[in-house]
Amino acid sequence: MRYTIFGESHGPAIGVVLSGVPAGLTLDWDFIAKEMARRAPGQSNLTTTRKEPDKPEVLSGIFEGRTTGAPLCAVIENTDTRSKDYGNLADCPRPGHADYAAYMASGGCNDYRGGGHFSGRLTAPLVFAGAVAKQILAGRGIQVSARISMVGGIKDPTKEQIEETIMAAKMDQDSVGGAIACTVTGFAPGIGAPDFDCNVEGIFSRYLFAVPAVKAIGFGAGFGFASMRGSEANDPFYMDGDTVRTRTNHTGGINGGITNGMPVTFEVAFRPTSSISREQDSVNLRTRENVKLIVRGRHDPCVLTRAVVVVEAAAALASCEVLGI
Amino acid sequence: MRYTIFGESHGPAIGVVLSGVPAGLTLDWDFIAKEMARRAPGQSNLTTTRKEPDKPEVLSGIFEGRTTGAPLCAVIENTDTRSKDYGNLADCPRPGHADYAAYMASGGCNDYRGGGHFSGRLTAPLVFAGAVAKQILAGRGIQVSARISMVGGIKDPTKEQIEETIMAAKMDQDSVGGAIACTVTGFAPGIGAPDFDCNVEGIFSRYLFAVPAVKAIGFGAGFGFASMRGSEANDPFYMDGDTVRTRTNHTGGINGGITNGMPVTFEVAFRPTSSISREQDSVNLRTRENVKLIVRGRHDPCVLTRAVVVVEAAAALASCEVLGI
Amino acid sequence: MRYTIFGESHGPAIGVVLSGVPAGLTLDWDFIAKEMARRAPGQSNLTTTRKEPDKPEVLSGIFEGRTTGAPLCAVIENTDTRSKDYGNLADCPRPGHADYAAYMASGGCNDYRGGGHFSGRLTAPLVFAGAVAKQILAGRGIQVSARISMVGGIKDPTKEQIEETIMAAKMDQDSVGGAIACTVTGFAPGIGAPDFDCNVEGIFSRYLFAVPAVKAIGFGAGFGFASMRGSEANDPFYMDGDTVRTRTNHTGGINGGITNGMPVTFEVAFRPTSSISREQDSVNLRTRENVKLIVRGRHDPCVLTRAVVVVEAAAALASCEVLGI
Amino acid sequence: MRYTIFGESHGPAIGVVLSGVPAGLTLDWDFIAKEMARRAPGQSNLTTTRKEPDKPEVLSGIFEGRTTGAPLCAVIENTDTRSKDYGNLADCPRPGHADYAAYMASGGCNDYRGGGHFSGRLTAPLVFAGAVAKQILAGRGIQVSARISMVGGIKDPTKEQIEETIMAAKMDQDSVGGAIACTVTGFAPGIGAPDFDCNVEGIFSRYLFAVPAVKAIGFGAGFGFASMRGSEANDPFYMDGDTVRTRTNHTGGINGGITNGMPVTFEVAFRPTSSISREQDSVNLRTRENVKLIVRGRHDPCVLTRAVVVVEAAAALASCEVLGI
Repeated sequence: MRYTIFGESHGPAIGVVLSGVPAGLTLDWDFIAKEMARRAPGQSNLTTTRKEPDKPEVLSGIFEGRTTGAPLCAVIENTDTRSKDYGNLADCPRPGHADYAAYMASGGCNDYRGGGHFSGRLTAPLVFAGAVAKQILAGRGIQVSARISMVGGIKDPTKEQIEETIMAAKMDQDSVGGAIACTVTGFAPGIGAPDFDCNVEGIFSRYLFAVPAVKAIGFGAGFGFASMRGSEANDPFYMDGDTVRTRTNHTGGINGGITNGMPVTFEVAFRPTSSISREQDSVNLRTRENVKLIVRGRHDPCVLTRAVVVVEAAAALASCEVLGI
Repeated sequence: MRYTIFGESHGPAIGVVLSGVPAGLTLDWDFIAKEMARRAPGQSNLTTTRKEPDKPEVLSGIFEGRTTGAPLCAVIENTDTRSKDYGNLADCPRPGHADYAAYMASGGCNDYRGGGHFSGRLTAPLVFAGAVAKQILAGRGIQVSARISMVGGIKDPTKEQIEETIMAAKMDQDSVGGAIACTVTGFAPGIGAPDFDCNVEGIFSRYLFAVPAVKAIGFGAGFGFASMRGSEANDPFYMDGDTVRTRTNHTGGINGGITNGMPVTFEVAFRPTSSISREQDSVNLRTRENVKLIVRGRHDPCVLTRAVVVVEAAAALASCEVLGI
Repeated sequence: MRYTIFGESHGPAIGVVLSGVPAGLTLDWDFIAKEMARRAPGQSNLTTTRKEPDKPEVLSGIFEGRTTGAPLCAVIENTDTRSKDYGNLADCPRPGHADYAAYMASGGCNDYRGGGHFSGRLTAPLVFAGAVAKQILAGRGIQVSARISMVGGIKDPTKEQIEETIMAAKMDQDSVGGAIACTVTGFAPGIGAPDFDCNVEGIFSRYLFAVPAVKAIGFGAGFGFASMRGSEANDPFYMDGDTVRTRTNHTGGINGGITNGMPVTFEVAFRPTSSISREQDSVNLRTRENVKLIVRGRHDPCVLTRAVVVVEAAAALASCEVLGI
Repeated sequence: MRYTIFGESHGPAIGVVLSGVPAGLTLDWDFIAKEMARRAPGQSNLTTTRKEPDKPEVLSGIFEGRTTGAPLCAVIENTDTRSKDYGNLADCPRPGHADYAAYMASGGCNDYRGGGHFSGRLTAPLVFAGAVAKQILAGRGIQVSARISMVGGIKDPTKEQIEETIMAAKMDQDSVGGAIACTVTGFAPGIGAPDFDCNVEGIFSRYLFAVPAVKAIGFGAGFGFASMRGSEANDPFYMDGDTVRTRTNHTGGINGGITNGMPVTFEVAFRPTSSISREQDSVNLRTRENVKLIVRGRHDPCVLTRAVVVVEAAAALASCEVLGI
């Protein structure tokens, strides 16, 4: 299975083409709608006030309610776009955002409105694809679930702490970063290979770094390994009936790039939303002068609450590749 | 360029095939030898006492001193193998090592001697490939350099601290983890794409997770972003003459999966060497019983000192892919 | 650049996503429309009477008239579908068509209406993609052009012969096969490699066999080489000023999988349209009985006239891959 | 499974790395030796007098007699090289050979001795890889067999006709082309997809065009389709017990890029050996002058007799990719 996401934040539509979807799958559209809703904006005062129905229209790959195995294309219309908000970004890149990199990659031809193809909005088709992937995985006993593991430096925050931290940043016309932990259960031991294109950690990383704002990933104890000794880090084996298990799972279910049968666990760090309303230093790419920039538009002070399902989607798609689906 | 590493720790030879090497390159063999020496064991009492000349013999791809563009195969003989040391590992996997995962991936047919294909020894051909890649990159103004950024929890350690920490672990029949920071300079802005197979962070991750014992990677501030606010994390732009630069480089030279012209920086965490001489809990995969395991053989109490050049090699090969070489 | 075609003949829409389109390209929409028209049905009594405007709507990847480098998605609505014509194909595969193979590949979940994803209609988005590719190639001095080189056994037929042969087949409730020859000019010498994934002949083949009904491909003299001697087949070199050329071009511009600077020439064979109105032997896949099948619906007695631009499109996309675009 | 062939005709060794070989396979080395012998030179007066034992030495990927799943590297030493024979080819490319293309691809750095990496000798490691692939396929009920289907224009020649045709060409200081037909039995129906990277015809083509001197491929009736009508070309279905079969197999077991359960059949055309001892027109790439070239060295007047097993090897490797091995 292979996905290609297309679209721009302020273009006519965004969407995704999923190639290699197994045939014969009856998709649960309520489940897909619920997954889309977990990512949708405008749910609380923690998120952007942009409201979009985000209803995917399927153009292909489904016949009489089942997947056909041919490419599945789903399109989501852009309806609530206020492009005027972004006029000053044509020439002045937002610090921390992909604006400048995108400008240079395209020779100045990028669609800068709302971040264009680099907008967080493009995670909507990713969540759609992930919702399909989750249903394929469910049929093989694989479950993916994520949670906020850090916000603004607070480890394993309560829902209240998350809310307070984000509101505090919002009050300060600022944003805040965090981390999301994800667990994938159900992999048999022995899947993967050590080399750079079949390595399970490498595959997950590749999908997770395609999620906007993800800047780090650690498997199992992750960077915690840097402070550990071997006697502590090594996961002791034991027989659980006829099954080999480990008493701890510091390694996060992967050794030598191969699954060991324990849950695959990883954590990803998200940078704070780069669009903040404070005045920031930028440059005018046309006049080549230093400028002060005020970013307008509607932005999340923290993407974490909406990003949990996005991380799960990326992990589900990665899991399909791991399984050779 | 594409590399394929082959061989087992205790087989006749290890090696690498590099396809797609640009033609016409006159390789600096002294440089390659020096790079190999940076990784070679037996240099100090911090590393394994295994001694191998590690001299790569080139079988193909070079003619009259220059690369031909045809696949370059380099082979390194295994001369100092003591396979008897590993007899008890045939059935009893080492905690923390790839033994069990490799056993399951191969249906019990893996070469377990010295970790077989999963041995740290396989980083020798990786360093060879990296040394070739560095010379290709040098011709394009790209430099790669790494350093130990953490050992056993000590951040930015001095050489003395590194030595003390490793010796202390060795004394305790234990091992210790750490981290290596790497910087790649010289990328023009605008290279890469946001999607999951051209994303610069994704490409680097894929190569770095193929390095044995790497368990985490962070770009720029990495997991530090989880404790930051946007006002702190965003890198302010300014004009340096006619060049756009950022005053800070928290983002590590990459935004939206695309280079921004600043140095690409990342840090990787290494787990502690899993082979420690203390008694550990394992299982006998044949008899399906719990057992106590004593790992014999010669092992590094910490791979970090030898791994610096390995990280550089992986980063150099990743950089070639980023540049479309 | 990479293309993914989606859609089914009788679904809501068909389309294509082009990833990796170079940024900054101002597309010539008149040219694209003309290319689409070359493939469109209903132009003469030689082709199916199905009429569709085939107007591609671009959903992404274009901003202010120029490509942005982000994926370009173009959608073509299906408006003139008569699905009832295909009712009897649900269980009874058409001899020579992909019906049965598609049925088996999808476990019976394929959209059989009008051939579904296997319909010749899916060449419309391919022609769109090819029209984009041709414009990219034109900027690099590469031209692609094809012509009917055989119809019903007549070599290098005149337009009259083509018309007569096809009409004769139509009168007989039959169809007829043929061949299309294609020339690509402008490749510099030295592009490609002998191995199986960079080989120029291999790359072209891969794209051409993705065109429905193509069953053979030959480069230069192609199967004619089987009757030649070396003294005749070898293309003698000579200096044309400072340029190396060959007096003949039997090899079709490619030696050892690498371009030699002469025009790349190849010929592809098309099978006769499998949908003919004569009664044919088939089976009922549900009841597992032998049946007699009458194929209804509107079908071309010969695809060649519409396929010329399709072959050019596939060749243009292949040429982009050859050039590393 | 993925193969990378390395080496040059007159370098120290040639070889192949096979990645992704299924673990646990006990290779039949007698079979491998017999396959190598089918390709080996010096067997009759029809082939070059170069004699090499061509004994592959396995460096990795085998442990205790079974494949481990880690990359398998096999090396074949070059022992009987007479490089002086090729001195005049340094600057003067042989018409019909890859010399000039290789020169341009490498900026003049190619190893021209004996064709270097483009030598037919490189088919030895290909045959080795194919012999491994055949054993994997045999375990899945897949058989590959090829035969000479044409020589010098004679269709389905007897062994006597083959010998006479080749000897006649040799007497004339010339060479002769031909074709090889190949059949792969045992594919289940429904494998593959229509698109350009999973298309079964596309996959086979890619592997076959990597065989030196192959210039055309046709599936089933191949170019014969160009002279057929649909009523003749369509393969009628019938029930054979509970199995769907076709009475004819003009389509060569593939429809829409997907297997239909009938044998996959194809034919490939080989150009005449380009190295002939007659004087030919060439150019001096250094002095940029027209020259007369006499090719020395030992060459086959026809590669067909040795190429049968090479075609089978390429087909076996392609079959593995088709099956997702």
